[in-house]
Amino acid sequence: MTEERQISKAVISRLPRYYRYLGELMEEGIERISSNELSARMKVTASQIRQDLNNFGGFGQQGYGYNVKYLYTEIARILGIDRQHNLIIIGAGNLGQAIANYTNFEKRGFMIKGMFDINPRLIGLVVRGVEIRSIDNLEQFIVDNEVQIAALTIPKSKAPEIADRLVRAGIKAIWNFAHTDLNVPDDVVVENVHLSESLMRLSYRVCSMQDERERKEREKTV
Amino acid sequence: MTEERQISKAVISRLPRYYRYLGELMEEGIERISSNELSARMKVTASQIRQDLNNFGGFGQQGYGYNVKYLYTEIARILGIDRQHNLIIIGAGNLGQAIANYTNFEKRGFMIKGMFDINPRLIGLVVRGVEIRSIDNLEQFIVDNEVQIAALTIPKSKAPEIADRLVRAGIKAIWNFAHTDLNVPDDVVVENVHLSESLMRLSYRVCSMQDERERKEREKTV
Repeated sequence: MTEERQISKAVISRLPRYYRYLGELMEEGIERISSNELSARMKVTASQIRQDLNNFGGFGQQGYGYNVKYLYTEIARILGIDRQHNLIIIGAGNLGQAIANYTNFEKRGFMIKGMFDINPRLIGLVVRGVEIRSIDNLEQFIVDNEVQIAALTIPKSKAPEIADRLVRAGIKAIWNFAHTDLNVPDDVVVENVHLSESLMRLSYRVCSMQDERERKEREKTV
Repeated sequence: MTEERQISKAVISRLPRYYRYLGELMEEGIERISSNELSARMKVTASQIRQDLNNFGGFGQQGYGYNVKYLYTEIARILGIDRQHNLIIIGAGNLGQAIANYTNFEKRGFMIKGMFDINPRLIGLVVRGVEIRSIDNLEQFIVDNEVQIAALTIPKSKAPEIADRLVRAGIKAIWNFAHTDLNVPDDVVVENVHLSESLMRLSYRVCSMQDERERKEREKTV
């Protein structure tokens, strides 16, 4: 993956969206697309698209456009979703079960190997073929099943202790839904999904919009 | 809110995290904090903190530090979470129910007024005091309850049609969990939570880390 070293974080963060649109194009049977057509669909400038995709070199050809399948496959390779990742879910509440029920993750190589909870009423239940297990057996399960990724859908009070256990058991990445920052070694990846923060950003934008509307109303009446 | 006009998007996107840390400080009974102490906790440089918080002016004082409660309250005001926002959830599956069960949203002014689904087996159920209703009555409910925000936790195939109905009924913001981009008028806010994309970013980082480890191993053996 040496050629990817120079790709900026901003470009990487945009790749999943390209991947989604290219997947939709494939479903529609479209084999190639120009940056202008892709621009119209994605509502991103064609020059942004060309710049982003030029990072990988050789995908687009003058007068031909992009080969949809090739680009789709290359982006999958760069994102590492052409490999298999074994995943467990810690916390079998609604959010954990929502993740277990999301079939698209498997299509992208994320295999859900197990779910864990402390609630005896949940332990033993099966969600879409995945058994909910007692958290007591977490470490052995991670080793036995070569688990790389743990989704953490538990309250923030329990999150630091569980994160420590996951790291000691050899987990490489935590998909963190608990509303707290985790302290992990540098070689363990943490990807946060903080729903409260997302809702606050939405709130800010709604209020700015509302203030703007009110300001315009006032200007009209003056 | 005229004084906030110049605040950059990057600063705004960091405010919810400040808000979370300040809330934790208040819970611990800490009344004031220096930028250095806050820096150590948040693992952000003290100069970044000073720069960010100087945007609002007058919160910090030389030799005193920041008044925790004042800063907390001001950030809440800027984010608009000191106001009440009425919210509905479209899609009463696991993800919708997870949101309905999250009590913290209410503490921040987001009042969940109703949930909607098309599944007759779900309609009539009550999740933490919130009734699941038939989507047929969506428009009237939005008007009657002055609903501003709709969380969209439905499959992407249904999302565009429902988004259109929400907009026509006067919704001001969509918190979009459906894995598709929504076309809405400029004055309607869309905040996306695309879990697949988050998982792909995690995958990229795990793979980069792994490649890096393997490269170092190879260098050792040479």
